[in-house]
Amino acid sequence: MGHPRVAGVGLTHFGKHPERTTRDMFAEAGLTALDDAGVDTDDIEGVFYGNFIGEVSEDQGHMGPISAEALGIDAPATRIESACASSGVAVREAIKNVRSGESDAVIVGGAERMNNLGTAETTASLALAADDLYEVRVGITFPGAYALMADAYFEEYGGSREDLAHIAQKNHENAVDNEFAQFQYEIDIDDALDAPPVAEPLHLYDACPVTDGAAAAVIVSEEYAEDNDLDIPVRVTGSGQGSDNLALQDREYLTQTPAATNAADEAFDDAAIGPDDVDVAEVHDCFTIAEVLALESMGIFDHGDGINAARRGDTLPEGDIPVNLSGGLKAKGHPVGATGAAQIAEMTRLLRGDHHNSEYVSDASVGITHNAGGTVASTVVHVLEVDQ
Amino acid sequence: MGHPRVAGVGLTHFGKHPERTTRDMFAEAGLTALDDAGVDTDDIEGVFYGNFIGEVSEDQGHMGPISAEALGIDAPATRIESACASSGVAVREAIKNVRSGESDAVIVGGAERMNNLGTAETTASLALAADDLYEVRVGITFPGAYALMADAYFEEYGGSREDLAHIAQKNHENAVDNEFAQFQYEIDIDDALDAPPVAEPLHLYDACPVTDGAAAAVIVSEEYAEDNDLDIPVRVTGSGQGSDNLALQDREYLTQTPAATNAADEAFDDAAIGPDDVDVAEVHDCFTIAEVLALESMGIFDHGDGINAARRGDTLPEGDIPVNLSGGLKAKGHPVGATGAAQIAEMTRLLRGDHHNSEYVSDASVGITHNAGGTVASTVVHVLEVDQ
Repeated sequence: MGHPRVAGVGLTHFGKHPERTTRDMFAEAGLTALDDAGVDTDDIEGVFYGNFIGEVSEDQGHMGPISAEALGIDAPATRIESACASSGVAVREAIKNVRSGESDAVIVGGAERMNNLGTAETTASLALAADDLYEVRVGITFPGAYALMADAYFEEYGGSREDLAHIAQKNHENAVDNEFAQFQYEIDIDDALDAPPVAEPLHLYDACPVTDGAAAAVIVSEEYAEDNDLDIPVRVTGSGQGSDNLALQDREYLTQTPAATNAADEAFDDAAIGPDDVDVAEVHDCFTIAEVLALESMGIFDHGDGINAARRGDTLPEGDIPVNLSGGLKAKGHPVGATGAAQIAEMTRLLRGDHHNSEYVSDASVGITHNAGGTVASTVVHVLEVDQ
Repeated sequence: MGHPRVAGVGLTHFGKHPERTTRDMFAEAGLTALDDAGVDTDDIEGVFYGNFIGEVSEDQGHMGPISAEALGIDAPATRIESACASSGVAVREAIKNVRSGESDAVIVGGAERMNNLGTAETTASLALAADDLYEVRVGITFPGAYALMADAYFEEYGGSREDLAHIAQKNHENAVDNEFAQFQYEIDIDDALDAPPVAEPLHLYDACPVTDGAAAAVIVSEEYAEDNDLDIPVRVTGSGQGSDNLALQDREYLTQTPAATNAADEAFDDAAIGPDDVDVAEVHDCFTIAEVLALESMGIFDHGDGINAARRGDTLPEGDIPVNLSGGLKAKGHPVGATGAAQIAEMTRLLRGDHHNSEYVSDASVGITHNAGGTVASTVVHVLEVDQ
């Protein structure tokens, strides 16, 4: 059996849309994806939907059926919640469904509504991704947790706020022409260094924003594509998932993320490639330090060297391996439950040539996506490939 | 490839355990299942976990990693939320994972903690399974929704509160010797008829209780069982899932549940059986009327006839097709996110002969489980078989 294909993708604008419901946003993203794919809703045999905090932001659980209804699809619908990796895990379930022959065509995506909450409520609901008993009750917030990881990294490997600022600068620059991005403006190193602290050593431009938005992708089998004369260049050749203890205190290291390493190892094995084969990556940069840990966890850079990559130029658009050409979570935005599917959408467009930054990867044949939940307690890695 | 096997199952006591966390209860159920299976935790390649209202009852999302950690398992862990069908859908994902060859051994289960909430909070959190925009805001509660369905049923097909009381009486009697059940006592028809109303025509004994508890099952491939010399009699031969519009107002009928029909059709096709082949069933009787709708939706009884089944004796332990020999949600209890996996646990023990009510099904070779979310907007049906 051939590899599943990404037949079409869709995104809403990522930004502040407190007046839009998740079902409204998912309808836009999902119908865009179906239209992009040229696949009829009647052919869709399953819906996989990621959402994180609907219970808090919309008093709504049981969103699987709503996600199908929003698209006019009569098929089994499953909601996955894995914090910031919710729709990444949903993508994995969708891929497995097509790979196993269970379905020929499915739609996967996610949506999140966050800006209708106040700041305290938003911080509290994001903390649902951390361990309530062992972290949240003693005062850990997500910026605080990633600040601990950044501090530990600086202590173990060296590095500075200025190194991290280069990552923020890169990702903001990448988003300037991204019509879907929350922040379409550049920043310079001094902007980042002079910004107010969020949790030392992380300052404002080290953190992704609070974002509303939705993303979707239509996944079909190779056979479906052939039977329907669809010319679909992007294949999903690898998928991997890893989990770790939820609380940071229960981990062996603060500076390594084995859930991501396990996910990447599985995905690379699955695709029969190695990290050296990767041409372009979208990784989970909820904080600048998270981009460093992501790249190192997957073996793209050695431990201790990931923090130099942006400054050195390796991960810039013109570099050896452009990272977060979408703008990443940092500048594109992070509607939590939509992010994993959005990475698939961005990577698909990058590889097939209709992304605003496709010019930088016109020779690329292998792209990866890395979507992490919490402080990387859940991670999903996917490998997408096109022929060159 | 052969059918996945249910290698082992585990349950906690179902009841009022407000002081126990879900992770604590899932550890008990999961370790019991692993012990029952004789499968080592190191062999487990995936964890699928159902939970509904953890965000409200324990300020905890992102429970996938916690569920794996609770069992000392280092494997990808995925949390599924599909309201009252959460762990039923998780079972389906686990089955698919083993069937596709993705994993040889996985554990699936669920847990719910509800009695630490006050009554108003419990009602509000259960309402997360209904449509917030179109049902909850106009005053629908779950007892109210099922009361509307019961009223419509009476109007369309006839039937009475006394017919429903026979279902409650049966399920209470079935639970008397179930050490895991919340209510181990009998009721008579007058108890049910004289009980205070919850939402007319449904009274207290028409409704399942608010329950804390956990359930788990270890699912392995036939090859794994053979390679490890495990003699596992119970096979999962069929799996089906269906979804419907979440809000009752968006359905064509109040008296039929097509999501369950679609799930059953798929599961029966999958197992190459029909409803006439079913020997024993565990169905989602969150209210007595729900047992009627469940049996009719799957073609076990004709529309309009399901309400007579208990009174006539067909679904009693000595009847043609015993239903809810565990006591059902009605008397065994309904820890929402655990219920689908608990049905698998009960059916496995019924079929392999170590259930307190196995004597009634000693010749049974085909059992089905029916787990529904919300007002049957999500349904999962599984077929379990043993050789006789």
